[in-house]
Order: sequence, then C-alpha cells, then structure tokens
Amino acid sequence: MTCDSAGDPGADDGDSVVYDLASDCTADDVEYDRPYLAEINGIVDYGVFVDLSDSVSGLVHESVLEGTYAVGDELVVELESVRENGDMAFEPVDVDDYTLRQVSHDYALTGTDRLESNLGEQIHLEGEVTQVKQTGGPTIFHIADEDGVVPCAAFEEAGVRAYPSIEVGDVVRVTGAPEHREGSVQIEVDGLSKLEDQDAEDARERLENAFETRAEPHDVEPLIDWPAFEKLRPNLEEVARLLRRTVLEGRPIRVRHHADGDGMCAAVPVQIALERFIADVHEDDDAPRHLIKRLPSKAPFYEMEDATRDLNFALEDRERHGQQLPLLLMLDNGSTAEDVPAYETLAHYDIPIVAVDHHHPDPDAVGDLLDAHVNPYLHDEDYRITTGMLCVELARMIYPDLTEELRHVPAVAGLSDRSKADAMEDYLELAAAEGYDEERLQDVSEALDYAAFWLRYNSGDQLIQDLLQVDSDDEERHRELVSFFADRAREEVDEQLEAATPHLEHETLDNGAHLYRIDVENHAHRFTYPAPGKTTGEIHDRKIEETGDPVITVGYGPDFAVLRSDGVRLDIPNMVSELEAEIAGGGVSGGGHLVVGSIKFVTGKREEVIDALVEKMAEADIDEALSSAAPIDD
Amino acid sequence: MTCDSAGDPGADDGDSVVYDLASDCTADDVEYDRPYLAEINGIVDYGVFVDLSDSVSGLVHESVLEGTYAVGDELVVELESVRENGDMAFEPVDVDDYTLRQVSHDYALTGTDRLESNLGEQIHLEGEVTQVKQTGGPTIFHIADEDGVVPCAAFEEAGVRAYPSIEVGDVVRVTGAPEHREGSVQIEVDGLSKLEDQDAEDARERLENAFETRAEPHDVEPLIDWPAFEKLRPNLEEVARLLRRTVLEGRPIRVRHHADGDGMCAAVPVQIALERFIADVHEDDDAPRHLIKRLPSKAPFYEMEDATRDLNFALEDRERHGQQLPLLLMLDNGSTAEDVPAYETLAHYDIPIVAVDHHHPDPDAVGDLLDAHVNPYLHDEDYRITTGMLCVELARMIYPDLTEELRHVPAVAGLSDRSKADAMEDYLELAAAEGYDEERLQDVSEALDYAAFWLRYNSGDQLIQDLLQVDSDDEERHRELVSFFADRAREEVDEQLEAATPHLEHETLDNGAHLYRIDVENHAHRFTYPAPGKTTGEIHDRKIEETGDPVITVGYGPDFAVLRSDGVRLDIPNMVSELEAEIAGGGVSGGGHLVVGSIKFVTGKREEVIDALVEKMAEADIDEALSSAAPIDD
Amino acid sequence: MTCDSAGDPGADDGDSVVYDLASDCTADDVEYDRPYLAEINGIVDYGVFVDLSDSVSGLVHESVLEGTYAVGDELVVELESVRENGDMAFEPVDVDDYTLRQVSHDYALTGTDRLESNLGEQIHLEGEVTQVKQTGGPTIFHIADEDGVVPCAAFEEAGVRAYPSIEVGDVVRVTGAPEHREGSVQIEVDGLSKLEDQDAEDARERLENAFETRAEPHDVEPLIDWPAFEKLRPNLEEVARLLRRTVLEGRPIRVRHHADGDGMCAAVPVQIALERFIADVHEDDDAPRHLIKRLPSKAPFYEMEDATRDLNFALEDRERHGQQLPLLLMLDNGSTAEDVPAYETLAHYDIPIVAVDHHHPDPDAVGDLLDAHVNPYLHDEDYRITTGMLCVELARMIYPDLTEELRHVPAVAGLSDRSKADAMEDYLELAAAEGYDEERLQDVSEALDYAAFWLRYNSGDQLIQDLLQVDSDDEERHRELVSFFADRAREEVDEQLEAATPHLEHETLDNGAHLYRIDVENHAHRFTYPAPGKTTGEIHDRKIEETGDPVITVGYGPDFAVLRSDGVRLDIPNMVSELEAEIAGGGVSGGGHLVVGSIKFVTGKREEVIDALVEKMAEADIDEALSSAAPIDD
Repeated sequence: MTCDSAGDPGADDGDSVVYDLASDCTADDVEYDRPYLAEINGIVDYGVFVDLSDSVSGLVHESVLEGTYAVGDELVVELESVRENGDMAFEPVDVDDYTLRQVSHDYALTGTDRLESNLGEQIHLEGEVTQVKQTGGPTIFHIADEDGVVPCAAFEEAGVRAYPSIEVGDVVRVTGAPEHREGSVQIEVDGLSKLEDQDAEDARERLENAFETRAEPHDVEPLIDWPAFEKLRPNLEEVARLLRRTVLEGRPIRVRHHADGDGMCAAVPVQIALERFIADVHEDDDAPRHLIKRLPSKAPFYEMEDATRDLNFALEDRERHGQQLPLLLMLDNGSTAEDVPAYETLAHYDIPIVAVDHHHPDPDAVGDLLDAHVNPYLHDEDYRITTGMLCVELARMIYPDLTEELRHVPAVAGLSDRSKADAMEDYLELAAAEGYDEERLQDVSEALDYAAFWLRYNSGDQLIQDLLQVDSDDEERHRELVSFFADRAREEVDEQLEAATPHLEHETLDNGAHLYRIDVENHAHRFTYPAPGKTTGEIHDRKIEETGDPVITVGYGPDFAVLRSDGVRLDIPNMVSELEAEIAGGGVSGGGHLVVGSIKFVTGKREEVIDALVEKMAEADIDEALSSAAPIDD
Repeated sequence: MTCDSAGDPGADDGDSVVYDLASDCTADDVEYDRPYLAEINGIVDYGVFVDLSDSVSGLVHESVLEGTYAVGDELVVELESVRENGDMAFEPVDVDDYTLRQVSHDYALTGTDRLESNLGEQIHLEGEVTQVKQTGGPTIFHIADEDGVVPCAAFEEAGVRAYPSIEVGDVVRVTGAPEHREGSVQIEVDGLSKLEDQDAEDARERLENAFETRAEPHDVEPLIDWPAFEKLRPNLEEVARLLRRTVLEGRPIRVRHHADGDGMCAAVPVQIALERFIADVHEDDDAPRHLIKRLPSKAPFYEMEDATRDLNFALEDRERHGQQLPLLLMLDNGSTAEDVPAYETLAHYDIPIVAVDHHHPDPDAVGDLLDAHVNPYLHDEDYRITTGMLCVELARMIYPDLTEELRHVPAVAGLSDRSKADAMEDYLELAAAEGYDEERLQDVSEALDYAAFWLRYNSGDQLIQDLLQVDSDDEERHRELVSFFADRAREEVDEQLEAATPHLEHETLDNGAHLYRIDVENHAHRFTYPAPGKTTGEIHDRKIEETGDPVITVGYGPDFAVLRSDGVRLDIPNMVSELEAEIAGGGVSGGGHLVVGSIKFVTGKREEVIDALVEKMAEADIDEALSSAAPIDD
Repeated sequence: MTCDSAGDPGADDGDSVVYDLASDCTADDVEYDRPYLAEINGIVDYGVFVDLSDSVSGLVHESVLEGTYAVGDELVVELESVRENGDMAFEPVDVDDYTLRQVSHDYALTGTDRLESNLGEQIHLEGEVTQVKQTGGPTIFHIADEDGVVPCAAFEEAGVRAYPSIEVGDVVRVTGAPEHREGSVQIEVDGLSKLEDQDAEDARERLENAFETRAEPHDVEPLIDWPAFEKLRPNLEEVARLLRRTVLEGRPIRVRHHADGDGMCAAVPVQIALERFIADVHEDDDAPRHLIKRLPSKAPFYEMEDATRDLNFALEDRERHGQQLPLLLMLDNGSTAEDVPAYETLAHYDIPIVAVDHHHPDPDAVGDLLDAHVNPYLHDEDYRITTGMLCVELARMIYPDLTEELRHVPAVAGLSDRSKADAMEDYLELAAAEGYDEERLQDVSEALDYAAFWLRYNSGDQLIQDLLQVDSDDEERHRELVSFFADRAREEVDEQLEAATPHLEHETLDNGAHLYRIDVENHAHRFTYPAPGKTTGEIHDRKIEETGDPVITVGYGPDFAVLRSDGVRLDIPNMVSELEAEIAGGGVSGGGHLVVGSIKFVTGKREEVIDALVEKMAEADIDEALSSAAPIDD
C-alpha cells in the first residue's frame, strides 16, 4: 500500500481514527479496513456516490445505507470492493468520536525498507535517472530518489530500448511494483514519464535537498587530538561530502593511488568505506563491485597511459552498461604539474577529479582541474601529515562504523613515509592499544611495500586487506603473513645492499656534506625488490646512521637519478630548472620536494647532468634540520 | 502465417482472388478470411468433406450448404474453425468471377521481418549451420538462410548436445516457433534434420545464389573522381564481397591494423560498416560484439606473437562458443615477407586472410597465402593511395549509409601518411565542405597518432571514434579533445627534439646529400612519445625544410636503425640484402620502400653495419624527385 | 523414491518378498506396488489403522478388509493413496509364503545416476560442504558425499545468504529435490542442517572411508617395463591419490609448469586427466573449467610475482565464488631453494603444494613446504627420468582411459630434455607403434618449444593439444602444424647462430677443454626465438659435434650467464657459492646441476665474475662421461 498517514498511527490508539485523503490522492492511496471521510456528491435510487478525493469516488449501495442523505453530507466509509474496471464500492462505518488524520498522496515511495514492505504492490517513485542499461530483455533504469538508488526494469520488446527519450540525468516518475530479482529489489515498471516544468523543478529541489542532507559527512571526532590536522578538516569534509554525493547519484568512482605503504593505507580504508556506503544506498548487490575500482599507479604521478586506459574502460562501461563516467579519486598522488596532461584528457569527458595527497603540490598547475584538493602544503603543513592519516579520517567521515578496524592504520602510514609528525606518538599509542607495537607496525609497513612491488599493476584487494588487517578476519594469518613478508623484504634489501655498497662512490663536498653515488643499473640487481628508488633510500639511511653528518645520496641509472639529502639546504625543483636551461640536449626534467626528488635526462648526457648537479649540491648550505625522510617515489 | 502467394497480392485488386493450395501444402498454409479452392471428396448426411491439398481437408456442415453436391465438385471455401485436435471446418464463399492464385508450401520462412510477424507460430526454415553453441540449457544452432542468421534453440536435456550429428556447415531443415528471447528473435526448435542428397543440393544452390546476391557490394560512386583509384576498385569490390559473404555465413572477423593515423582511418570505418551489416543480418543483438574485433599491431608486420595469440583466442571461442574460426583482415599492414610465418601458422587452421595495404608489397611471398590482396603497388600505383582512402570506399561498399560520416576521413588518412597524391586536393575540399579545414585535419591526424601511442595494445574504440568523429555524437568534445591531443603531441615532439637535436651528427656525403645521424637510444627519451621512428621522421622533415637539399636521416638504437631520405635514389631493400651478405655475424635484416625503411642487426655490429650503410648511401645518385614522405613504421 | 532394500531385489525372484520398514523410515520410503509388513494399532468402525514404522501409519478401509483383526496383528499391505494432507490409505495384499526384506531409511541419496533417476522427488543427502556461492538469487552449497559433488540451491531471499551458519567444511544433511538446472543436476533445498556430535562423526567417517576408497589411484601397468621408474612409483601413486582426493573434496587445482617441451608433456596429460575426473565427480558442467587452471612459468622456478598473482586470483575466487583455496601442482619445476619464498607465501593461506620435477632438488629447503614431492634425484636417479615420463603415468593413475592418447608423449618428453635414459629406446618403440618415428617426435618437441616461446604467459590449451596430439581430433592438422613450427624453429635457430657464431670467443683451457664464450646480448637478436639459454645450448651442441672434445660454453648478457659443459667435472652450484664469497659487490647467485646452470650478477661486475668463473673451469678435471644434456632453463 502506498498510503502514508501524516501522523504516527500508533500514537493515539485510544481514539478512533478516520482518514482524510488529500485532494490529489488516487485509488492507490485507499486501503481496505480503513475508515475514510467521504462527501456525498450525488444521489441515485440504488445508492449514493461519494468522493474521497478529486479522483477517488464510488458508490455506497442503498442496501447498506440507513437514514437519509443530502449532497454535501459527510460520511465515514470503508472500501468494500474494487471491480475489474476500477469502480469502487464503499460501505458506511459507524464511528462516533474520531480523530481525523490527513493522508497525502505519496508520489515517491522508495528506500530499501519501504520497497521490501511493498513487494508486489503498485507504487510510485520519483527520482533522477543515474544509469540506463539495455539488457537482452528489459531496459534497466537505475533511479536515485531521496532514499536510495533502485533498478527499474521496463520492457518494450526484448532487447529494445524502452522509453528511448529518457536519459541519464532526467527526473522521472515511475509507476510499478517492487519485486525481488537477482539479489535486489527491482521495480517492474508499469509507467515511466519525464517530469516537466514545475513538477521537474519541485522534484529536483526535493532531490537536491535530500542529496545535500544525505551527502553530509558524519561528524566524527578525529582519532587523535591534532591541531595541524584541524586546518585540513574542512577540506576533507568537503571531499567526504563529494564522494557520498557521488554515490547517491550513482556515479562510479575510480581510485588511483601511489603504490606504496602510505598510498595503500590511504586507499584501502576509503575503498571499503565507499563500498559499504554504496551497499547501503543501492538496491543492487553488485553495485559495490561495479561502482568502485581501486588501482595502484606505478609512477608517482598520473601517467597518460593510465589515464588513456582508465578513460577507455569508462567509455566502454558507458557503452555497454549505460554507466555514467566516473569520478577520479587520486590518493597519495596527483598534486603536481606532471598530472596535468592526464587530467586534461579526462576533463574533456567531464570526469570530476579529486586529489588527497601530501606530496609537494603545484596548485597553480592542478588547481583548476581538481574539483577538490586536500594537501597539507596548502595549509602551511607538510608531508608529515601523511595521506594515510588523512584518509583514515576521510573513510570515517564517509562510514564511521569502520572506525574500529582503522585505529592502527595512521601509524602504519606514518612509519611507511617516515613521518616525523608530532602526532606520530599519539598514533603509535592508539595502535599500541590495539595490540600493534612499533615493531609490528613497521613490519606491516615493510610487508605492504613488498607486496605492492610484486603485485605490480594489480590491486590485490584481499591480500592487502589481510596485510593491513582491515576487512580481514584471520588475525593469525595476518600476523604470520606480515612477519614473513617483512622478513623477506629486509633480506632482499640486505642482498641488494650487499651487492651495491662496495660500488658506492664517496666524496666530501666543499660544503662538508658527504656525497654518495651509486650506479643502480650496473651495481644492483634489476627487476627485483627493492627497486632503484628504495635501494637509494636504504643506502642513504644507513649512511646517515654511520656518519651522523650531512649526507646526499644519488642513485642513478641510464636516464634517471634518484636524490636524497639530509642536513643540506637543497632546492631540487630549482636545480632541475637550472639544469634544464644550462644543459642543451640534456632533456632534463623532474622534480620532487626540496631535499628529495628524482630527475630524468637522455642517456647520452648522464655524466654531464650528474656532474652539474653535484656542483650545485656542493654550493648548497648546510642545514642540519632538513631531512629527506619524505615519501620517495621510485 | 506461413503461407505465401506466388504472385503479388496487391497487383490485381480489381478482381476477386481465390487461392489454390499446392498438393504439399499443410494446415499451416491455411489462413482465416481467405477463399480457397476445394474439391469435394465425400458426402455424409451432416455435410461434405473437402480437400484443399493432399493433407488439408475438412468438413463443410450441411447447415451452411445450399444446393446439391457431388464428389469431385469444386467449391470455394473459407476456414471457419480449427478444433483442438486439428480438425478443420470450412464454410462456402460466394464468388462469381475470380482469379486463381497458386499457393506453394513454404518450407523456409525466415528473415528478420518475417520472424517477427510469425512469433509463436510454427514455421519451417532451411539453412546452413554457422555456429553450434552448447549452453547449460539448450543447444543453440545459428542458422543462415537466404535472409539472415537466426539462433535456434534445441533442448535435449540441460547441458546435453541436441542433435549431436549436426555440425557447422551442414544444411538443415528446422521446424519450430520464433520467440523473443534475450534481445533476439530465436526459434524454439521442434525438429531439426540434416538435408541429404538432392534436397541438400537444392538448398545449397538456393543459399549459394542468395549469398552471392546478398554479398554483392553496393555500387557506390567513389567520393571523388580519381583515375588512379579506379584501377584498384575491382579488387576492393572483391574484398567487400568477401567480407559481406563472411558476415552472411556467420564467420567472425578479426581486424589487425597498423597502429597509426592511416591505419585507424582504414580500420575504424570498415569495423563500423561491418558491425552495422552484422546487426542487419543477425537476429542476435550481441552478434556485432561477438563477430568482429579490431586490434592494433605494434609492429609494422604481423608478428608471430600476435598470430599465436589470435589463434589461441579463436580456438577458445570455437571450443566455448562453437564459433567458426575467423577471417583475418589485415589493414595498412600485411603485404610483406615478414608476415609469412604468421600467415602460415593461421593457414594450418584454414583461416582466410585478406590484406588491404599500401606498403611496398612482396606479392611473391604473400600471394598464395592471401584470399584477397589490395595494394596500389600491384597496379603501378604507390603509397600515395593510402589505406585509409581505400578503406573508406570499402566501408561504403559494405554499408553505404555510413557515407555521411566518412567524407573527411580520406583527407585525415592522406595527411597522416603525408600522401602527395594528386587526389589530396579533392579530398581536402571534400573535408572542407564538412567543416574540416586543413589545420583541423592535421590536428586529427596528430591526435590519432598520439592516442595510438598511449593506447598501446588496446583498440580504444570509443576514444578513437571520438577523435575521428565517426559514430560519435559530441562534436564539441571531438574538437576539444583533438586540439588537446594534437597540442600535447606537438609539445612532446618539441621536447624530444630539443633533447635530441644537439646530438645530431652531420656530414655531407660524396654525392652531396646531407646525412644526419642520431642515437635515439642515448639522445632521446625512451618509452615516451614520440617513439624512435617518429622522432627520426620529425628530425628529417625539419632538416629538409632547413636545407632544401637532398637529406638522409638515420635514427639508430642498439640493434636497429630507422632510415629516411629525400632527393637520393636509395634502394633500401637492396642495401639490406647486400649488408646481409657482406657483414658476417651482423644478423642484418629489414626492409621498407626504396627511400624509407628500417633495419635490424645484432647490437655488437652496430657501428660496422651503419658505416657500411652510409658508404652505400654516399654512392647513391641524387634524384630530387624522390621523397620519403611515405608511411614510416616505428 | 528414496527407499532402498537391504538385499538385492533381483536375487530371489522365486519367492514373494514383503518389505519391512525400519522404525526410522518415513513416508518417503514407501513406494506404490510394494507389499509392506504392517501392524494393526487401532480399530475403528470404518477400518483399522496400521503402523509401518514409527512415523508411517495409515488406514485400511473396512470395505477392503475381510475377516476380523485385533490390535497387534500383522498385516501385509500396499499403498493405495496419499491424500493432499499426507494421510495414507493402504489395502491388504494376499501373500502366503514370503521372504521379509528389511528396508532402512536412506538418509543419503546421491551420486550422478541416482539423482537423475529421482528428479523432482524429495531426497536426503549427507555430505561435506565444499563451496558456498552466494548468487543474486539462491545460495549454492556444493556438497560432496560418497558419490560426487552436487550443487544445492537454497533460497532465503534473493541475494541473501541462506543458512548463514553453514560454512565450507561442515558436514550437513540436506533434504530437497534434484532438478535439472543449467546443465547440471542441482538439488533444490527444502532443509539443510549441520550434523552435530555422533551424527557428524559417523558421517565424517563414512565420507572419509568413501573418499579414501575413491581417491585410490588406478592400478595401471606402466607403459614400459623400467626398474628405475619403479622406485618412484609409490610416490607418484601418492600424488595421484592426493589429486583425486582434492577433486573429490571440491578443491580447485592450479598447475604451474616449466614452459618447455618436457613441462608441457607433463602438464597437459595431467590437466586432461583431472578435467575428465572432475567432470565425472561434479554435477556441474562448468566444474572442469572452474576447478583446474594450467599456466606456464617463465622462470625455471616459482617467482614471487607469479605466486602473488596466483594467490590474488585464488582469494578473489574465494570471495566471489566461495571456492576453497586451491592446491598448487608444480610440474617440471619447483624442487629448489629458489621456490621457497613463493611457497612460504602460499603456506600462510594453507594452500597445499605438490611438486613433480626432475630438476636437481634441494629437499632440505622445500621438503617441509611440500605435501608431496616426486623427484628422481630423491631415489638416486636423475634428470633422465623426465617429468613428462612421470606425468604420463600420473595422468593414467588418475584417469586410465586416457592411455591410448598418451603412448607417444614420454618419447617427446625425453627428446625435449635430451634424456639419455635407458628407457628411451622402449619409449621410442612405443611411439613408433603409434606412427611416430623419431623424426616426427623430434619435430613435436621443437614445435612445442617454439609455441611455448610465442605463447609467453598464455597456456594456449587447444594449440598445445593440437601440437601434442592429445585431446585433439585432426591428425592432418597436427602433422602439418608440427612440421611448420619445427621448420620455423630450426630456421630461426639457424639465423640466430649465423649472427652469433662469428662472435664466438674460443680458448683452450689449461685442462684441455674448449671454452666458447658468446655475448648473447650484443651478438644475438634479442626478444626473439631462440632465447639466450637455447641459443647457448645450440652453440654448445654444435661445438661438441665439431670438436668431439670436452667443451664448455658460456652465453652471457649484462647480468647473467648460461653455462653448459660436456666432458668436464664442473660443480656449478659449488662454483657459485665460491664466487658469491670471493667477489664482494658481485651480487652473485644462481645454480643448476653439476655441469649445466645459470648465474646472475650485477652488471658492473660481469667481467670479474666471468673471469673468475673461467679460472675455476680451467682447474676442473676432465671426465668424458659427464654430459650437460640436461634440461636447461632460459
């Protein structure tokens, strides 16, 4: 039954209740065994005709009538029968004292619970079309209303597009019956029409208000008290709102993240939060699988190749499944000028892009291309607030029930990126309370890094969740697997360093800093763990420990070099710009933070480029406070 | 109704028509409200029995009879009723003057329109089995008759092969009822038998005639008047015929094309033309997706790896879906001796191969392996007739309705391959009339090349269609995307050349030609756009412009070199043969056109090979007319 | 009908049989037209009530009764009718002499044949849950009983997990009706409960006994009489038992094999034997495709990347399809320390691992990680018993009907790995009897190797089966394809050697052996057939033939070398260990057999490593008996 009373029917049992239909109520709003207020509008010799609303009227037969009636008299009646042609017959009800309860015509009757309780009955629903999928049989319209997204099956002819004028984005009114179908409640459509003019405007406003309300992120208390984080919180809430809204509107989400420990600590919680929210919103068990996909990016930026591939898949999904083009969510990645070509490609297809990152951003380059951008550098903070820390809070804003599973994740993220944030202590304590001491956290971090290397372009959902112990159910396996991977990772780093260290070239620069150079192509194993960037980082860390002095480490291959420095005031982005200008035919490009970065050049100019680079390094000031313990990309 | 009249029922409305069933007509041939000529074959006291054919007879009740009748009398009757047991009752019709129209029993009743109008009724159909797919439920026989290809579902037992003796290629007679099923009309099979002897011969002849007629390409006027093209036209019609026939016979088609601008201008129109023709022919909405696949080839020839993969997929499709092995269509590729091993591999599986190409062919090598071969060089024309130009006409011969969308494509193809054909002017005008000025066309060409690079092994259907503005619906997006990709492409070429140009080695050869050499491995960025071949080509083009003189450019890597020359009478295929013989252990191979090509060698002999090559170049005659603006493969 | 008699009903036709239901029999156990022994338990004026068991009773109407009866009297009755409410009516049967036959209530009624003959009737079944797949509709429990594995569909609500407490591994009792569904017999579940306590114990014991019996490998006579093989036979039977048991328990199997001729001769027969056994055991036509997958390993060991990918897929299959994690079957691979990290990764997920290999094993390293390990070296035999020879016998133990198709396979395996086993002669004779002379076998071997190279990471099922002529139906194609591939392979080897041979460096070592060195990176074609390992092997073989003397051949690239020797007492594993210790920063690792192997190092130390290696080789003793004709991995 599609009829709703304005008040709470259970609240005033003491008194009789008589229902008063609003003028726009229809026959669908009338239920058996309910007293309705009617008005007599005609008298014939076999009975009286009564109106219950503008369109609901019927006969009360003289055989059940007592006394006399005049047109305009009120009468309390119950539905007696509905004939096949729709004619209704009523009978009078004897009630003395009663309370009137207004019944308004309910145009939109949806939401998970209300569909379930109206299975098989005809209902109405108004909402926005979010997807139009032509199957071999019916056309499936996914329709978002104030309460959720429901697939509605309309059958014109097998494989033929029903209601061909209706498109994604239209606001429509559907009449039909909810049925169970393949794991979902689905509405079998009897009628579907596009709302026009004022009706459409009203519906859109209603939807807009509902979306706005429901998109509102949960107001969760951050896991720890951290003033620096507070500066980013409003931005993060904006992203949570945007992502929730994206889910409500039935748009798919594609997550691309940095393939390292912090990147996975960021992406996995957000992925799971969104999956659960999608499951709540969508009346389609496959929706979480179809509407969110997570993939690692191998490069530290969004490459044209990845963007072309993502676009290609998105266009195919639109073609085959009538999906909207996705929103792109860049995590621990996506803040720099190198992302611009890929972003612009997607922008031509009106694909919204959101980035949450803690790499040094270039807001001038990416600002206009991003629908939202969270980055500590935009608030005078830095990489020490890692993306994983941010995204655990983001995931909680989206789906707070996840909180219990995430308490240890920010600490893993922080250790992965060697964050020296003052909050680390709190995060470590929080993790410790869950049974994660620092050694175990460090192991998880190493294990994630190791797994990411071998998974290459795969997301490895379950494996990563087991390593991170999020949405994973076997703690013993988690512990064993983490230890095993962490041990393997350390062993393989040791082997790599054993091969590489004898080839380290050392010199003391004019400014007193130690410079270590290593040819990672010729003096380290290739195509194996650890990759050149990590190899360089590990050498650098050991040299800092050994010397205690300012140290610069350069790991180079045929056409690239990875740079790390501690205690020296480098400005790598600036150095790259200078080299680009100074070395004709060097093909120099690259970037990074002040004291950590990478650089590319053409193979034939390697020596010249590195020599020039070292010269610049020798001129840099010593500044013991500067540390390269930032995220380094390989 | 399954009954067909021999004449045209609409042609002689002025006179009454009475139908005369042939002796082999059955009850299915009888329709209500149609007068039939009957003969009385028995008289009983409650009426007379009449015969309409050998197997159609029934009662005319005495209550509707007037006058007296004798056995053997003719009577015109209409069908009054059919009882559940099949007994027919007729009533007499009063007609004075009438024309008799013969009705023959129609064993084959198919074709899209006629199935739709016979839903649920029993029909007969004769045709050739094109695919036998065993599902978990019924066995699906795809049957091609004179009018189309129809899936016929026969159920023996769930998952059990029905009619196991029936195989692909058999000619069969099916009895059953057409029904809507998963977006298709499908026939629910009541009976299916293999035709034998004369019946089979007759049916095959009928099918053969029908296929021949329907395979006939459309006689389209070429987009421009071009005598050179006329020489190739009969060949191209032969290919169109072969491809249409392939569709009619339900054989899949695999398109492999050169992954550059001209290759895509060739492959996309043909792909779309075939998709639309398949959709017309097949009563199965998924047929276009299942029966044609397009893939770029990265190499300028058909590599064993691609062939093995294609064969592997084809064998799997046969195993799983009972499909025939495909026809291979090579576009802008496939004319040379390097294609032979791959072709021979497929030949063992009786996979037909067709090539449309404008690269310098080796007809002795590939001739016997190709079922059809279109190449301007076979008609004393050359690369200037690009494959894209040819294939636009081919697509139109297959599906002429596509014409409006293709007018600008030959110009793009020509610009992509720098064609100096005299027809280019006409093609440019044709494109201009559609709103494509030369700059825009050039942009499309650059954009296609750029997209092809990043798509790597993907076909990127929708993206390429959007760039080419074929089967694409958003012109604004097309324009923006093209500009953006073209600009990116040019920027990246500029960056590459900025790195490479300072490393160019220049010398003036004895014959006065400028020789430029560039080590593209050491002095250009690797794994990025533009690839070595294009990098070399761009350098060459700029040097021609700068010098105006005869120019040879050699771009080399560790084990390959790309060659371009203008104004010098080289004969690269001949040079390669000489080097192969002269340099022991050089592992020299390669080829190309006279003045453009590529060469491979073992890394350790690079210097020797290139030096010997340059020596030969220095001896070549100057001939200002010769240009390398031919398609170059990287 | 679910009722079984204790004796054989066909055995005593001479005498009348009366059935006596056990006290726990239910109405389901009663069949029409069968005389049952009943006892009168009540007398009313319209008849007598009889009991057939504790729960089966009914009325015998007075109209069909003769004589007088007392409560407690026995009466032989037949079922007359069952009313809609389940009430049963019986009628007396007149039998004088009869034999009583006990009928026990049959709780478990399954097995392919018995389900088919009970379609639509209610049955009971007890078994172990092997897979729980949640579909959009019902939950599908795959249940293994003594006779097979049956999918059982339980519907709670669409897409909602039915019986959520039931998990894989539980022993359950199902009540329901077998129906045909999508190519399988499937049981529509009416009730499903977990067995507890004694019931569970009893059922498990029954299942265990049945599994044990049915897992028993077939006792097949080896194809040839070969004492050396006999030593391995019990081990091989153990593997056959384990694999059959794995199938009975519904666990998937993942096969990883060496991507060469012997590897494929091993893997393909086992794959096909398992597919056929799975088809017999599982009431699900898709089971063979879902439960066994074969993939080649490119490396000569199980790489972390492959293991991570396999684990990832397995976890996804568990997540999506409720499958158990697979058993890993390593063939012609998997015996060495290099496999350990990958094995340990899988071990954390309780994935059983079985290896059948003939490479030199390191049982200390892999022993604990393998559930079974067959290797000739563990029995004082060696590589000459190839894995293909072993696996043909293994396949026959699993599915003996395959024998006829496999007689030629051991000979191909032996030739592929140049086995000098004394059994080769018998195998060659066996193959000759099937029409395979040595030349043809050699061709098959070359063709397999060639195809494996181009297939790269694909299994290429049908193509490989066509080459090997196993489960393949077109002998002519097989012959042509084999010749073609074998010829191509030889031609390409010739081309490679033509390029490489002039660059061979020759010296005579102090011990008199010839040493040949070839830089396969610089003096052979890259990325093409043959790969460096095979190139080195072919050079070596030709040099042995040319010189007749002791020969060592070293093929090296930037960071690897492949070693082959004949007639010299090398100990490569020992040499590698020494080099590892002696050359700091060399990053040396590797291994192999005594006289054949490969070695890795960092690029920058290549010269030093190879020089040191050669020095060691020069000190080795000459021993003409030693041959490197062992399997070599590239």
